[in-house]
Amino acid sequence: MPDLGIDERRLWDRHQQMARLGATPDDGVNRACLTPLDREARRLLIGWAAGAGATASIDDAANLWLRREGQEALAPVLTGSHMDTQPMGGRFDGIYGVLAGLEVLSALHGRGVRTVRPIELVAWTNEEGGRFAPGCMGSMAWAGARPVADFADVRDNEGTRFGDALAEQLALEADLPRRAMQAERPHAYVEAHIEQGPLLEAAGVPVGVVTGIQGSRWFEVTLQGSSAHAGTTPLASRRDAVQDFVRVATSLNAVMHDPDDVLRFTIGRIAVEPNTSNSVAGRVSFSIDLRHPDAATLDARAAAVLPAVLGAAGHTQATVAETFRAAPLGFDPGIQATIARAADRQRLPCRHLASGAFHDAQFVARVCPAGMIFVPCRGGVSHHPSEYATPRALALGAQVLAATLLDLAGHDA
Amino acid sequence: MPDLGIDERRLWDRHQQMARLGATPDDGVNRACLTPLDREARRLLIGWAAGAGATASIDDAANLWLRREGQEALAPVLTGSHMDTQPMGGRFDGIYGVLAGLEVLSALHGRGVRTVRPIELVAWTNEEGGRFAPGCMGSMAWAGARPVADFADVRDNEGTRFGDALAEQLALEADLPRRAMQAERPHAYVEAHIEQGPLLEAAGVPVGVVTGIQGSRWFEVTLQGSSAHAGTTPLASRRDAVQDFVRVATSLNAVMHDPDDVLRFTIGRIAVEPNTSNSVAGRVSFSIDLRHPDAATLDARAAAVLPAVLGAAGHTQATVAETFRAAPLGFDPGIQATIARAADRQRLPCRHLASGAFHDAQFVARVCPAGMIFVPCRGGVSHHPSEYATPRALALGAQVLAATLLDLAGHDA
Repeated sequence: MPDLGIDERRLWDRHQQMARLGATPDDGVNRACLTPLDREARRLLIGWAAGAGATASIDDAANLWLRREGQEALAPVLTGSHMDTQPMGGRFDGIYGVLAGLEVLSALHGRGVRTVRPIELVAWTNEEGGRFAPGCMGSMAWAGARPVADFADVRDNEGTRFGDALAEQLALEADLPRRAMQAERPHAYVEAHIEQGPLLEAAGVPVGVVTGIQGSRWFEVTLQGSSAHAGTTPLASRRDAVQDFVRVATSLNAVMHDPDDVLRFTIGRIAVEPNTSNSVAGRVSFSIDLRHPDAATLDARAAAVLPAVLGAAGHTQATVAETFRAAPLGFDPGIQATIARAADRQRLPCRHLASGAFHDAQFVARVCPAGMIFVPCRGGVSHHPSEYATPRALALGAQVLAATLLDLAGHDA
Repeated sequence: MPDLGIDERRLWDRHQQMARLGATPDDGVNRACLTPLDREARRLLIGWAAGAGATASIDDAANLWLRREGQEALAPVLTGSHMDTQPMGGRFDGIYGVLAGLEVLSALHGRGVRTVRPIELVAWTNEEGGRFAPGCMGSMAWAGARPVADFADVRDNEGTRFGDALAEQLALEADLPRRAMQAERPHAYVEAHIEQGPLLEAAGVPVGVVTGIQGSRWFEVTLQGSSAHAGTTPLASRRDAVQDFVRVATSLNAVMHDPDDVLRFTIGRIAVEPNTSNSVAGRVSFSIDLRHPDAATLDARAAAVLPAVLGAAGHTQATVAETFRAAPLGFDPGIQATIARAADRQRLPCRHLASGAFHDAQFVARVCPAGMIFVPCRGGVSHHPSEYATPRALALGAQVLAATLLDLAGHDA
């Protein structure tokens, strides 16, 4: 196995530079998609990639592509992840997959290696769904799962339409060449990511070969009551949306109880109107995020949402809309084997494991063979400012990514 | 009883002009205190008052004073209310008391009546508490209940400090003379207001003589858990602040149950962090608004808040802070009698009733004899865009206010 030229220090420094864009006082990062900070991060990436011999282009979903040509006009090998964060996010989720891919390009460039196939690095738009829900809009649009126009009317908390924010981004990046949405079917896709769970760290294993991703069903529930004066309105005559929320959440908790604690049921976002202390709430909307590795179980639980909501919303008019759906996915066995072989050749122990989080890879997998490499992160913590991975862990993951991409892209001995 | 010169059409037109400042598409008004819209409304009022021979000044809490001099240097008779609205408020709450007072000044001016005592019209700052909680900041500060500096660090939903918003308002109104906070102890205070309850309309009675105001206790509860990834974090290891909110609210509902439906218990405002669909909530804060006409009952229920919260918040660290307190109040019997006599002289039926809402009058009552006149509003609805009172109802209330103020201020036959 040749020295692949992965530079631990460079990779770590680039993470620190990226972390400054949206840095929060507690070491976290808040870098929402389609914002000036996002664009600054993209320009930084484009500059680094240019230094590694890669050229930039964007597609209609503002996915950012950085292509390093190969020796032959074959389908490219694809790697990447996303650059946006949760509002109270960390320094590694997403951006690691982008910078690890960049590190491979830099290492190849530094050693003058020309792969047979082109290698493309992609930064997908809006994976997190923190500003515009759902997430994975860029990869969904690219993979043909849903046209990007489907998301145009989604609004952020300030009322900005996704369609308008996207148009602004495309206009501000009009100097970059525009490429067709799915310019060509890639040969394969490999995405590196922190585990966002505790298994690798606990086992002392540096490399995770991801077997698949649990399925997700997201819902938005709206409880429409009637705003009223908190001092004058008797409780018996109220149509209080907050009180119905409490009843509905209690009912959902009962329906979603899982003694095995495998089902992930989360109410993470609540919006109240008018949301003042001395007005009875006229309207509450809230999100449900349901996940399970088994498709039948997931669908059965999802089917229980509507009756549970309607049965408990006694004083408001309740509606339930599904906002996101992703079936449980198994990654391509060939890609899994290629990653495991790459780790093995570097004498790095690896473990096969499933992903609890969803990732852009699950949509790319509809188009070409896909897989993921996980690296350990401290305490399994993610979506939090304290999210952390060691420089060494990041570099080892990048080494395995490099060997995997080289294997897939082909190269001179 | 002389014709007092109250002009129903003028009074209604002024309401419609004011309603344009912050108009919402559904006929409501959203005019928060200390905003450009608020300042625009104040300038409009100052102009109208100038036409009625009144001169403007402001105090350190930005309360706006409009004084029409009397024949003698006696303590003034005070009337007024507030000009700010709830975020989804209506066209009459607060502004009616200001415009009814203005209508009295205009009527006196139009007929050349010189009262013995000066009459002052006041627009109190931030009665609603919709932008900066609690409400009644201006009247509390004026009455000496709490110094205005106490509120400086209260922030609105955008993070703006009350102290900064107030300083901006004072700077932008620096052309108005500044008066001492409690320049002189008024002779009496009478505030007109829509009832915000259904009793007068149901009884077909045009005038309410307000006997008092129920007491209020407000609390802010914070549940500090830990944000986590919704896909990867097992429910057993979460410190989910939304789930603790559901438990705490259920516990509070049990403790606050009142079979007589006299206690007003409201959770009207909820703030969730980070408030994204795919993150477990790390923090929830919410408001409690408790009201009851009986002081002992109110205090007993208020004392039950903390144990109910702590007993139910199993996964988060809970804190409870009291943000507002107003004891139940009985208005001055002499003022009540003066209002009733004024109605009687105009052959208008009146009814004595208590107020469910709180009002600036309850703080002014600490300083001088005070009272309130209610007029009927449709369906008792308030704090809602559909809030409505007829032009006739508003004018009849203004007539009773005029007669009451004339009686208190004294005048030539």
